[in-house]
Amino acid sequence: MGRIALGVEYQGSGFHGWQRQLRDLTVQGVLEGALAAVAGEPIGVIAAGRTDRGVHATGQVVHFDTSVGRSLQAWVRGTNAHLPSTVAVLWAWPVVEPFHARFSARSRTYRYRLLSHPVRPAYASGVLGWTHRPLTLDKLRAGCGWILGTHDFSAFRAAECQAKTPIKTLLRAEVERVGEEFHFTFQADAFLQHMVRNLVGALIQVGSGAASPEWMAELLRQGDRSRAAPTFAPEGLCLSAVEYDEAWNLPRGRQE
Amino acid sequence: MGRIALGVEYQGSGFHGWQRQLRDLTVQGVLEGALAAVAGEPIGVIAAGRTDRGVHATGQVVHFDTSVGRSLQAWVRGTNAHLPSTVAVLWAWPVVEPFHARFSARSRTYRYRLLSHPVRPAYASGVLGWTHRPLTLDKLRAGCGWILGTHDFSAFRAAECQAKTPIKTLLRAEVERVGEEFHFTFQADAFLQHMVRNLVGALIQVGSGAASPEWMAELLRQGDRSRAAPTFAPEGLCLSAVEYDEAWNLPRGRQE
Repeated sequence: MGRIALGVEYQGSGFHGWQRQLRDLTVQGVLEGALAAVAGEPIGVIAAGRTDRGVHATGQVVHFDTSVGRSLQAWVRGTNAHLPSTVAVLWAWPVVEPFHARFSARSRTYRYRLLSHPVRPAYASGVLGWTHRPLTLDKLRAGCGWILGTHDFSAFRAAECQAKTPIKTLLRAEVERVGEEFHFTFQADAFLQHMVRNLVGALIQVGSGAASPEWMAELLRQGDRSRAAPTFAPEGLCLSAVEYDEAWNLPRGRQE
Repeated sequence: MGRIALGVEYQGSGFHGWQRQLRDLTVQGVLEGALAAVAGEPIGVIAAGRTDRGVHATGQVVHFDTSVGRSLQAWVRGTNAHLPSTVAVLWAWPVVEPFHARFSARSRTYRYRLLSHPVRPAYASGVLGWTHRPLTLDKLRAGCGWILGTHDFSAFRAAECQAKTPIKTLLRAEVERVGEEFHFTFQADAFLQHMVRNLVGALIQVGSGAASPEWMAELLRQGDRSRAAPTFAPEGLCLSAVEYDEAWNLPRGRQE
């Protein structure tokens, strides 16, 4: 009974994105189906971030309202028993009405895993973006420096994006090198559609030396999507955390 | 013309193992098909390690003989153009007749990635073994200490294993903790069928406290498969390297 929040993890490769659709398999669709099986009534969930087709999550947060009482363990284990192997509920937690998975979120954190190697990935093909171009960590970091803070991100916004405003605050824009992979971390109050993939596309230009780090600032200033780099592949992208006020006391996902 | 060695990477989830079969999709089958398309003649490959169904490789090595001349780049890029996204040739290198991917190998290195968490993996479901039991790194390492060196590994050998002798030399048996995952590394002159998965199954007993580290030595001494733990899941297993004499000068795979 009442409102329940869930932590959700998924491998997006086999799904047509998060959002429920009539015909195609979506993460929201299978999750609502599994929850309905546990509840014995239809359940509609609201997610903190509606990820695109092929995009993954290790830290998605959703909430739903229900008229039935189930233990938190039932919401986790029972639901997992009805989910495919590529979707799992990590935790369940009771919340009260003002809590809203989307509107209460203070920020979202996305990771992007990029392989820089002459040969495309195979072992990790579904979870890595790929460029054959060699990249320089210092240049990537310099490029990240120009996009931190509050900006009009129109240059990195998909044409079909429905956000009210293109002005967002990027709290973290970091890159680490792990073997031949580059791991990007972006944290913002909210993201425009395709924003991370568009940022990664432009940063690859910077990291490979095709553009200077300052080009990132120029793109922001011009606000013209057509001057920026193409939207990069969804495979490398993962919603890794959603941050809420600590007062909600939500459980944490897996440790990384 | 002559003999060519290849470095090969694959995600084993979608394949019925390495070895060519008449009806089922195998890694050897798709690789030979792609090589034949490049060569314009049938190609048969011999692998250093014939991995089981669901098992991956980042460092598989194969060789083949051919009557046609192609550039090394053609053997890499051309073959990759004919392979599914979950198989890739990382490098090609000319070798001469005494070189044999299987018989010239001095040792093989396997990695096993194991998630220890109450909830099964979803984001990385195809590439992680999973136990809900909490494990202690020190106990796992103590268990590994007992299996290092030359032993009769009959207790960890599949009934259908065709190796001439159960006596193998384990050169490395290491465990690291990475977040909620345990990463095992096993290097041996050669492995019996299911040997790594059987070792991991037993080590989980040790790591969870259900058995003492010395139990590993007892299992070796008894040599009785039926007393050891069940064969653990293939998903976490990956052939990460094959070691040859340096004189062959083979290229290295991806950096980890």
